[in-house]
Amino acid sequence: MRKIAAKASKKAGQPPGTLVYTGNNRIEDIKITTLDYNETQFQERTLHNIEECLKHKDKDKDTVTWINVEGVHDISIVEKIGNYFDIHPMLMEDIVNVHQRSKIENYEEFVFMVIKMISLESKTEGIEKEQFSLILGSDFVISFHEKTDDIFNQIRERIRKASGTIRKMGADYLAYTLIDVIVDNYFVVLEKIGEMIDDVESELIENPTPKTLHAIHYLKKEVIQLRNSIWPMREIYSKLDRTESKFIHQATAIYYKDLHEHTIEVIEIIETYRDIIYGMIDIYISSVSNKMNEIMKVLTIISTVFIPLTFIAGVYGMNFINMPEIQWRYGYPVIMVVMLIISLLMLANFKRKKWL
Amino acid sequence: MRKIAAKASKKAGQPPGTLVYTGNNRIEDIKITTLDYNETQFQERTLHNIEECLKHKDKDKDTVTWINVEGVHDISIVEKIGNYFDIHPMLMEDIVNVHQRSKIENYEEFVFMVIKMISLESKTEGIEKEQFSLILGSDFVISFHEKTDDIFNQIRERIRKASGTIRKMGADYLAYTLIDVIVDNYFVVLEKIGEMIDDVESELIENPTPKTLHAIHYLKKEVIQLRNSIWPMREIYSKLDRTESKFIHQATAIYYKDLHEHTIEVIEIIETYRDIIYGMIDIYISSVSNKMNEIMKVLTIISTVFIPLTFIAGVYGMNFINMPEIQWRYGYPVIMVVMLIISLLMLANFKRKKWL
Amino acid sequence: MRKIAAKASKKAGQPPGTLVYTGNNRIEDIKITTLDYNETQFQERTLHNIEECLKHKDKDKDTVTWINVEGVHDISIVEKIGNYFDIHPMLMEDIVNVHQRSKIENYEEFVFMVIKMISLESKTEGIEKEQFSLILGSDFVISFHEKTDDIFNQIRERIRKASGTIRKMGADYLAYTLIDVIVDNYFVVLEKIGEMIDDVESELIENPTPKTLHAIHYLKKEVIQLRNSIWPMREIYSKLDRTESKFIHQATAIYYKDLHEHTIEVIEIIETYRDIIYGMIDIYISSVSNKMNEIMKVLTIISTVFIPLTFIAGVYGMNFINMPEIQWRYGYPVIMVVMLIISLLMLANFKRKKWL
Amino acid sequence: MRKIAAKASKKAGQPPGTLVYTGNNRIEDIKITTLDYNETQFQERTLHNIEECLKHKDKDKDTVTWINVEGVHDISIVEKIGNYFDIHPMLMEDIVNVHQRSKIENYEEFVFMVIKMISLESKTEGIEKEQFSLILGSDFVISFHEKTDDIFNQIRERIRKASGTIRKMGADYLAYTLIDVIVDNYFVVLEKIGEMIDDVESELIENPTPKTLHAIHYLKKEVIQLRNSIWPMREIYSKLDRTESKFIHQATAIYYKDLHEHTIEVIEIIETYRDIIYGMIDIYISSVSNKMNEIMKVLTIISTVFIPLTFIAGVYGMNFINMPEIQWRYGYPVIMVVMLIISLLMLANFKRKKWL
Amino acid sequence: MRKIAAKASKKAGQPPGTLVYTGNNRIEDIKITTLDYNETQFQERTLHNIEECLKHKDKDKDTVTWINVEGVHDISIVEKIGNYFDIHPMLMEDIVNVHQRSKIENYEEFVFMVIKMISLESKTEGIEKEQFSLILGSDFVISFHEKTDDIFNQIRERIRKASGTIRKMGADYLAYTLIDVIVDNYFVVLEKIGEMIDDVESELIENPTPKTLHAIHYLKKEVIQLRNSIWPMREIYSKLDRTESKFIHQATAIYYKDLHEHTIEVIEIIETYRDIIYGMIDIYISSVSNKMNEIMKVLTIISTVFIPLTFIAGVYGMNFINMPEIQWRYGYPVIMVVMLIISLLMLANFKRKKWL
Repeated sequence: MRKIAAKASKKAGQPPGTLVYTGNNRIEDIKITTLDYNETQFQERTLHNIEECLKHKDKDKDTVTWINVEGVHDISIVEKIGNYFDIHPMLMEDIVNVHQRSKIENYEEFVFMVIKMISLESKTEGIEKEQFSLILGSDFVISFHEKTDDIFNQIRERIRKASGTIRKMGADYLAYTLIDVIVDNYFVVLEKIGEMIDDVESELIENPTPKTLHAIHYLKKEVIQLRNSIWPMREIYSKLDRTESKFIHQATAIYYKDLHEHTIEVIEIIETYRDIIYGMIDIYISSVSNKMNEIMKVLTIISTVFIPLTFIAGVYGMNFINMPEIQWRYGYPVIMVVMLIISLLMLANFKRKKWL
Repeated sequence: MRKIAAKASKKAGQPPGTLVYTGNNRIEDIKITTLDYNETQFQERTLHNIEECLKHKDKDKDTVTWINVEGVHDISIVEKIGNYFDIHPMLMEDIVNVHQRSKIENYEEFVFMVIKMISLESKTEGIEKEQFSLILGSDFVISFHEKTDDIFNQIRERIRKASGTIRKMGADYLAYTLIDVIVDNYFVVLEKIGEMIDDVESELIENPTPKTLHAIHYLKKEVIQLRNSIWPMREIYSKLDRTESKFIHQATAIYYKDLHEHTIEVIEIIETYRDIIYGMIDIYISSVSNKMNEIMKVLTIISTVFIPLTFIAGVYGMNFINMPEIQWRYGYPVIMVVMLIISLLMLANFKRKKWL
Repeated sequence: MRKIAAKASKKAGQPPGTLVYTGNNRIEDIKITTLDYNETQFQERTLHNIEECLKHKDKDKDTVTWINVEGVHDISIVEKIGNYFDIHPMLMEDIVNVHQRSKIENYEEFVFMVIKMISLESKTEGIEKEQFSLILGSDFVISFHEKTDDIFNQIRERIRKASGTIRKMGADYLAYTLIDVIVDNYFVVLEKIGEMIDDVESELIENPTPKTLHAIHYLKKEVIQLRNSIWPMREIYSKLDRTESKFIHQATAIYYKDLHEHTIEVIEIIETYRDIIYGMIDIYISSVSNKMNEIMKVLTIISTVFIPLTFIAGVYGMNFINMPEIQWRYGYPVIMVVMLIISLLMLANFKRKKWL
Repeated sequence: MRKIAAKASKKAGQPPGTLVYTGNNRIEDIKITTLDYNETQFQERTLHNIEECLKHKDKDKDTVTWINVEGVHDISIVEKIGNYFDIHPMLMEDIVNVHQRSKIENYEEFVFMVIKMISLESKTEGIEKEQFSLILGSDFVISFHEKTDDIFNQIRERIRKASGTIRKMGADYLAYTLIDVIVDNYFVVLEKIGEMIDDVESELIENPTPKTLHAIHYLKKEVIQLRNSIWPMREIYSKLDRTESKFIHQATAIYYKDLHEHTIEVIEIIETYRDIIYGMIDIYISSVSNKMNEIMKVLTIISTVFIPLTFIAGVYGMNFINMPEIQWRYGYPVIMVVMLIISLLMLANFKRKKWL
Repeated sequence: MRKIAAKASKKAGQPPGTLVYTGNNRIEDIKITTLDYNETQFQERTLHNIEECLKHKDKDKDTVTWINVEGVHDISIVEKIGNYFDIHPMLMEDIVNVHQRSKIENYEEFVFMVIKMISLESKTEGIEKEQFSLILGSDFVISFHEKTDDIFNQIRERIRKASGTIRKMGADYLAYTLIDVIVDNYFVVLEKIGEMIDDVESELIENPTPKTLHAIHYLKKEVIQLRNSIWPMREIYSKLDRTESKFIHQATAIYYKDLHEHTIEVIEIIETYRDIIYGMIDIYISSVSNKMNEIMKVLTIISTVFIPLTFIAGVYGMNFINMPEIQWRYGYPVIMVVMLIISLLMLANFKRKKWL
């Protein structure tokens, strides 16, 4: 839990608008890719120098420009882009503060979004969060994400090959495809979590152990945090409605509506997961009680059958001089038969109580 | 749980508007039925060829046309219908993605609905979900569902025989009857679930076992998923209000209102079920505790009665040379009486504590 | 639970507007009473023939007419009344479907209400539900209820004797008094449930048994269903507001407001009951745990005191040839004193732990 | 619980507007006090005769008149006041029905309020509820409460001595001070409940007993009922807003806002209490489980140490003729050492498991 | 819990507008600091005399004036400032009543805010609450807080050194920086609580003790109270919107929006904490059950293995004269082998049940 609030507290005491990168330390260079295209033209550049990049962005040309920045840990580069596009320092602060809440905001010059990318780490299959910021202007999209990631390669490919309608549409459609890829990835992560829930569930039914309990607790925390990350995205459609934002064209509106529906679906799946996970703890408690019951039954059956018998044996082990039964010829077999009868009565009683 | 998110994740990485059938694999042919009728005329065709079907649809005739498509796994057929009626690719995508959330949407040319059909499988009595999509225009209804199903036969029959008012009303009334049949089927499924709840409940009271617990858990998951499927249908009336949609005539509005009420009723029954099922887990835990109590009581009574007696027997089984009681003539009967008194005192004590 | 959804499922597959009585089978005749009154005139008729009744209803006379129909199982009679007053088949369907959700609806010609009557069965003291439908026009009230019931006798009496203001007021006031009687009866039922809660509560504190648990579960289900029945009546005031409905006069508005407040109060009492009943299960679980604790303590005290002593007795019951203590003169009394000391130490220890 | 609904059910079957006192039976005389004041004049009368009182109320004088009625069990007196001030019978019914829900309502001639007074009974320190009704006109305040109570003495004193601003302000300010005293008393009661929560909490931590459980249950019910009583007062500010009510002057508005905030604060404290009390039951269950654990540990340690030893002693107590160990010279001490080693191993094992 | 309501009850019975300091007793002098600045000028004074301070405040000068009052326990000083700036006595009452709910209110002459400062006490690392009141006029800010605290030193420093934009902006920006510092401190406290949650969590998994339970309870109460303190701050942005308040300039609006987002984030973190803490009690109960299970298993294994063996030994300890086995030569070893076989069968059985 430490992590949730820890990073934000780094910034306490800094004047507002100070850019502070709050993610993990990274040393790789920031990589900047620009794609410049319209239905007929296409140009792609990969640069490590921001000035060079900005030089290429010609504001008067009739093309859509996508500037993709991988890594936001180099504050100076982010700052230069911000200055060039005239972005308020408070927004730049949101971009580099990678623990920012998801949000969508309309400004005069552009739409500003912060979205959480969620993916499965390839090795450990753990869930990884990454912050994705997007600035959508009338003819450009600037996207920032924390790590070098190949998630957008398919989109780049589609632009290069002019497959689908992407080259015919504007910057709003490009922004949509980027967010769509992110939302599609939520489903992949949710499928993984669904699998984990299934695994824990069958463990719960077959053989619940304390490890099962901790798995449930882990899933619960994961789902709570996932929900918090995705929850603010509900507003994406209402904020990007045609009446609200001038950057979304009528032809693209249906795509954003679709996006909205997918987000609602993601949230509903998460809620369903949460309901089921919460119920699993009750099932766990019940299962443990059941096991205890099982144990108690065994103990009780064995004890209650043998304790009276042991007492009888004890009685005839007493050393009183005057004990007539002891002297009887068939004393021993008689008493053994008595014991047998007693134990059979006991067992019949347990049978009646359905303990056997 | 895997299934909830699994199918949607199939589509990750596909360009938007790509039609991907996300249901189970099917190999049967898609079956298309068209009914063309007005108060005086009636024509019915069953075809396996989509072009033929479309040829028959004459947009200028004064009839209501119902095109019913059974099976959406053949993407090409769905695509052709979509093109003919000028339906946006994103909507076609919703039709073939059978894990789509229920929704009702108004467009310029038609109303688009996705609804979940829920039915009891005839053999296993399990609950089956199927997606039903409906396009309602001014004089036509196109309906898509996943499987060959006889649920709409009664409506076809009513149209053929011109029984009731159906032949006198427009396409909006036809759409209503289709949805009404689906909602009526919800009650059949809910009745089945109600029976299962009753069964589990009497099991809970008479003899709760771990199997009961898993039955509760199963019911809970089923009800959560049912609720999620039906929940979005609450909007059906507000979305199809006369002020909202031009495809609903005044005379039909009362039917849609009735539909709305039935949906609310379904949702309330589900909520009631949920409340009761959630409470059953507490009852289960309590019942298990009660059983444990019962077991503990038996163990304690037997143990506490015999343990002191066994001790006394043990004392007189000691081999000390100088033990006066041993030599007494009536030592044995005296000690037996003492033991009897002790055990009677014990039992009286348990009686007082209401353990017996 | 079966019952909740079962009756509604009877209707699956019927064309909309088909009248189907969904209550229990009844064979008595339907009884129809009409009262025709204004400040000066009064006329009362009890009939078993509907045509006769309708003949008497003269639409132009300046009187308030109350037609009370006891029993809705004879569909043909209900249908005739519906046709005479020009009521839409869908509303007639609601009247005979006695599992209809409560509702209030404004139409051009009248207000239509479905309300649940709740009463205590005189013999078993069980809670009984009955459906009450009311049609309020400008100068008439038609009321339908399932069974022959004397609940409205006092109102008839008041009309006959012209006591109070009832003869001076219009049909809206008559409708109010009818609903008011029903709502007042809710309090009687709630008082009964309150008594049952009190009984269960004192049982819970004094001697909780599995029967207590089932009583709690029963109360819970009863309260959940009661809440669902009454919940939709919250809207009664907003729907019958002067701005909404032309059938409510200004002078009567304050009475409907009062009705609204009583309904809110009923709902709040139910919510309070629900909160308390939900908490009772936790109390029950705790009480059972407490009892188990008590049992465990007794078992532990007896066992831990006697088990070591029995061991010691066992040691001196061994048959080793060379056991010096056995030969000692005072071996036996010494060992008995040792045992006494051990048991006293044990008891002191339990005293310290507050187990005694 | 009986009480909640019981009193209201007294009224079932009465025609609307019938005054029925629903509180406990009282025989004292009703006491009526009138204060008549403006900035310069002041007159006070205590009367037991209502006609006399009404005679003094001169509607044209430029003074604020406060009529305080202690006791509402004498219906005839309340009725006379109601008739004099032209108050609708339905409101009079609310005044004498002391189980009325809190409410604030604007009428043409006055504002009508029903508020719950909550106080600590001086002897038993139990929580007492009393109904307070207030009618605020342009230049008069009529207040009704159930019992002779000294809660308003300080206000009377302030009016007599013209201390503070009360004599300079209108009837709206007087109404405010009356309600303010009531709301201030809520805090006194909440402080008491807070103390009780603290006491139960430390009991819970130190030595939870079944009595603690019942104390928690009692607190919970008390808090639920308190919440229900005070909840409707949230509306006080919105209902008495300048735009809503003509009886509140601009200068007094800030006081009503303050009142509103205090009410919100009261409700928030109650919600906090509720959260904490609900959590206490879980703590209780856990504590009881912990105690049981403790008991089980003792039983298990003693039993598992001695049971094997007793078995060994039993073995050497067997009477087989041919048992070589019995004959050994050092058989006895050897077996005693073996027993010691076994018990030490057992204890070491428990130490490892942290049971000791 | 006593404290929550206790302080507010101090005021019961006081006429409204009476200033009563409700915090802990303090004897230090109140310290007043004034900063007077614009882009070019800067003046700072520390005074202990309020008249002196007010003299310096020249209402016509074109500077921003910040009056910071440390300590509100000296009522007379607070009263003088209130009179000088013409603040309503009810607001002054809010300032000195340090248990006031957080709020933001717009008045004609200024904006009035009450905010909770939350900090970690340097020694005990406990959480401390302090009330901060702020009055924002067109060119002045007056801030009150309970204790001498260094939290605002960095802002003073920034003003002195004219670093950042603070000297160029107006009073609204100053107010923002003050609140921003307070909100930033929330994150520091939340990080600390997050650490405590982590600690308790690992304790819960490794070795839960009753102390863990009380730690969870403590965290829960802390989080509930924190939530209540911060919750009302949600409104800060909507209340200080440009359309609502004339004291916030357009250039500053983005900062207040940022503040709003941080507050939402704080509340979401608290909600997440709450969810996790509530779940921890279930985990605790489960863990305790698991431990009990473990104990029961040991007891049952030992008991059920040895009780039958002890019985057999008891049988052959009986003194019957005629017991053939006793006389057998290999009776003893045979019986020992039988015992061994029985115990091995028992252990195999437990192995099968996965108890070993």
